[in-house]
Order: sequence, then C-alpha cells, then structure tokens
Amino acid sequence: MHPFTKHHAESVSALGEEALIGRIRRWLGPVSPRAPFGIGDDCAVLPPVRGRQLITVDPVIYGRHFDDHVPARAAGAKLLKRNLSDLAAMGGQPVAAVLALTLDARVSLRWIEDFYRGLAACARRHAVPIVGGDLTQADGIIAASLTLLGKPAGSRVLTRTGAQMGDLLYVTGRLGGSLRSGHHWKFTPRLAEGVWLAQRPEVRAMMDLSDGLAKDLSALTPRGAVPVLEHALPRRAGCDLRAALTDGEDYELVFAVSGGADTAALERAWKKKFPRVPLTRIGRFARTLPAGVPNLADYHGYEHLR
Amino acid sequence: MHPFTKHHAESVSALGEEALIGRIRRWLGPVSPRAPFGIGDDCAVLPPVRGRQLITVDPVIYGRHFDDHVPARAAGAKLLKRNLSDLAAMGGQPVAAVLALTLDARVSLRWIEDFYRGLAACARRHAVPIVGGDLTQADGIIAASLTLLGKPAGSRVLTRTGAQMGDLLYVTGRLGGSLRSGHHWKFTPRLAEGVWLAQRPEVRAMMDLSDGLAKDLSALTPRGAVPVLEHALPRRAGCDLRAALTDGEDYELVFAVSGGADTAALERAWKKKFPRVPLTRIGRFARTLPAGVPNLADYHGYEHLR
Repeated sequence: MHPFTKHHAESVSALGEEALIGRIRRWLGPVSPRAPFGIGDDCAVLPPVRGRQLITVDPVIYGRHFDDHVPARAAGAKLLKRNLSDLAAMGGQPVAAVLALTLDARVSLRWIEDFYRGLAACARRHAVPIVGGDLTQADGIIAASLTLLGKPAGSRVLTRTGAQMGDLLYVTGRLGGSLRSGHHWKFTPRLAEGVWLAQRPEVRAMMDLSDGLAKDLSALTPRGAVPVLEHALPRRAGCDLRAALTDGEDYELVFAVSGGADTAALERAWKKKFPRVPLTRIGRFARTLPAGVPNLADYHGYEHLR
Repeated sequence: MHPFTKHHAESVSALGEEALIGRIRRWLGPVSPRAPFGIGDDCAVLPPVRGRQLITVDPVIYGRHFDDHVPARAAGAKLLKRNLSDLAAMGGQPVAAVLALTLDARVSLRWIEDFYRGLAACARRHAVPIVGGDLTQADGIIAASLTLLGKPAGSRVLTRTGAQMGDLLYVTGRLGGSLRSGHHWKFTPRLAEGVWLAQRPEVRAMMDLSDGLAKDLSALTPRGAVPVLEHALPRRAGCDLRAALTDGEDYELVFAVSGGADTAALERAWKKKFPRVPLTRIGRFARTLPAGVPNLADYHGYEHLR
C-alpha cells in the first residue's frame, strides 16, 4: 500500500498532531494504558519489574524495511516483531514498548491507521503495552523506531558469548529469500522457542539472524574457532547456498550446543514442543576448516553503510 | 557544521557498519558498558531497578531539531538533553539509554564523531550509560531517536495531572526565542530542579515546556479551569508576549502549587537551592478569565503536522 496521498483532506496534516495522537490511542486500543502508565505525560510510569531487564531498539523505515508492496498493517507488526526477535534471542519476554514516529505530512490517514492497527494486533498477541511515544514531522520520511523493554522469562539470559570449541550449531526454521518471499514481514518471532532454549543447560549461546548467517555467525564464534557448516542448510524454496548464507532478515535463531550433549534428546524434546518449527543441526565449531565445506569468509551478509 | 561530505574517503560509508560501531563504542568511552550490559548483543541486560521506572523517547532530526548552524557535538548532547528534560518534568533521574541512528551514507566521519562525543560528554555529566542501539542507512536522512529509562529520585512521581482550581502557576527560567538564541541546543535540562520540586508536597503537577506555554499549559489545566496569566512572563531578551507564549523548545518546567501554600517559603527555599535559576509566579487556575489577561486560545504553540 502506497503511504502518501495527494489529497490534503486524507492526509495526517489535515488532522493535526493533537487529533492524530488521539486517534493513535484509539487505534492502539487496549494495548495503550492510561497516563501516567501510558501515552499522555512527559514520561510513562512503569510498574516495578523484579530482577534484570532486557532492552533493545530497532526501526522500520519506508524504502528500507518496507515499501509499497508491504501492507501497512504488516509494516506496523514488523516494527514490533523485529524487536521481539531480539528479545527471543536472549530468552526474554516483553514488558513494554515506546515508539518514535517520524512522518511526512502527506502520509495518508488510512495508511497510518492500518500501520497502528497492525502494530496493535501484534502487541495484543504478545501482551506488550505500548506505553509512550513521540511524533515528529519531517519531509520525505516515514520512519518508526521502537524500543522494547523485556525481562528474562526464566532464570537464565542467553547471550552471544559462551560457545566453546567443539560446540554444535543449530538453526531454527529456513534461511534465505526473505525479501523475495515476503518472509521479512510475514515471519513469527521465535519467542517461545527462545525462552525454551534459554532454559536448556546444553545450549550455550544464541542470537537471531538479521544480516545473514555468514555475517552474523562471527558474533557467536569463540576465539580460535571456525564455524564448520558440514550439514545442509535448511533453505527456503528457490534459495541456493549463497542466498541462505547472505540474505538478511531471516529472523531465525542460531545457537550453540555443548559438544558432549545428548543431542538426540534435545531434538526429540524440540519436536514434541515445537512440532511445526524445523530445527536443523548445521555444523560445529572447530579449530580448522576441512576441505569441501563453505568458507564463510567468501560470503558477505548484509552490511549497512556500504 | 555541515554533516555531509563529497569525499567518499571521509564518509561513514568508507568505514562500513562494523568498523563504525567499533568507533562509536570508542567515542562513547566510559558511558558504553561492555556487553551484555551494553552494545554488542541482541539486547542489553540492565541490572535490577527497585520500584517504578520512567521511560521516554525523543529524536533529533537534521533539518528539524538541528541544522548546519548547530555544532555536531551540541546536536548529540541535545538528543540526550531533550529526554532528560522529560525526566526532569516528573522528578526522575536517569538509569540508561538506547539510541537508534538513521544515517545517510554521505555523512562525514568527522561530523558523526563529534555528534557521539557531544552525546558522550552529556551522558557522562548525567551518569547515563548508553547501553544499546541500532544503526540503519537511509538516503537523505540523519535522525537519531533516544529512549531514556529513569526512576523517581524520591518517593514521588510528579505528573501533569493533579492541579486544582485556585492553584498557582510557576515557571523556571525564561521563555521564548529558543531557536533564534540557540537556547534550543544550549539549554541545561532542569533535572535537579525537577527532583527537588517533586519532593515538595505543595507542588501538585508539573510538565516541561516544549511546544510553547500557550499550547502546553492545557495539559496541566484542571477541568473547568482556565489559566490566568496575571503576572508578567519571564521573557528571553528580545521576546514579546507572543514569542514567550508560542515559541517552542523552552525546556523549562511549569508547575502548579496549592493555592493555600506558603509561597514565600517556597520561593525562599528555591532561591537558596537554585540561586541562578529564575523562578517566576505567572498566574493561577481560575473559573473565569478576567479582562486584560491574555486568552491562550488566541495563541498557538508549535503544532507538528500543520
């Protein structure tokens, strides 16, 4: 859906800021708590959270993370889902979110309503109150940045650090072709999977895939090790090895499992818990790269600012 | 300082994303904690915070909140100060911040270094760790959105709600001419003042001024009341009444004091605590507007999307 309108009467500027904020609260509905616990004061007040918290921020920008082919509702949901995927990667669950929106005055009311309704539906599904935000006008821009606050679902926070030489590598779902297939806005963040994995002691380190396995995996790789991808990658239909390694926006989890673990038991337990989500052992961390295995240095994942 | 360069070698794109993130961590220096408590994992882990928290988000956007006349360091500091001003308005103190940056590839390294060094200096002064962020490239945009997490400094959170008929109105500092005078980036957020005011029981409601007193005051006004501005407004040099009422970005505090309070004692205590910050009684909330007093409905503060 094209976000801009040529008719002033159908644009956000016809409504003005205050009335638009009123509408936004209505579109958000039950995920928008009343001030001071939600939109309407200088800050939002958050009820006490016990223990450690998690925080992450990710935007969606018109022309970069969505375009006219993406429904406005899906763009709104994607904004939250990108952040939920980061939370999933550490075994967290959401607590609250705030949103900074930058909007061209010619954006249509219909588009922005759909965007917020899509965000609200996703927030309701995952029980995320949208407690605050900012609205700024700027020419030629539609950009929304969401900050998500979360907490560990269990006693453990799983980070990118902790994998060891000899650990086995697993990935959820299928990789590659995210833009072409629409996966980049249709995906489901792996929240339940992340929480479950963080409570398995044999899982040592985890992250979500956003810039392609070839690039992202380096953050998980322990010093002195190389990732040996000795098994076939789970690829989305029509994707070759390069696409599976380098296409961005997979929003899947990749994690390291202790080499001495009972992997059959892990895989059985996974299948019982998540029968519809593929789990694939793709390789291990080793000292050297055997012949016939892809050298990730030959592939480049998505790098911004290039 | 103009943010763009024509020479690729001096641009952020010459460096690329990963190297730039490395530089950003260096520029931030001690305000950038190590992962998982800072930049470098899917989320940042925050140590436990006791009790309620406060959260707010505000951006700075090139062409809107800063231009070539604003030093890059000042633009970086302004990003944090805008959010600190929101926290001040509720009597809060900062806990941590995350930052989403959207950057044109032609932005110069020198500009972005100064921007982050300015942000870092301000963060150090106010003891705000910058724990995470996101970096996205988008053509023609320089926009940074900061989410600030805080907590009440004392036992009380002061909101915009709570003023009553007959309450007196006070404002800190001077109003108007913020853009012309450079106050919009030179200002000091009223953090200490906000904390102090939130602990005074006679202060009933408070907010910070960002879109001009005439517009902002409506949020503080109790049902059935009108603000009667019967005293002279503290104006910045060269500002008339309209400028003091409608210019945006004052970043001062306006608050309501119980009509029965010992205002002489409040004013004396203020003068002792904050000898260099003007405190001015500007009026009160009444049922009707007497003749000869400005009718705020005749003035319009800054409204976005118009």
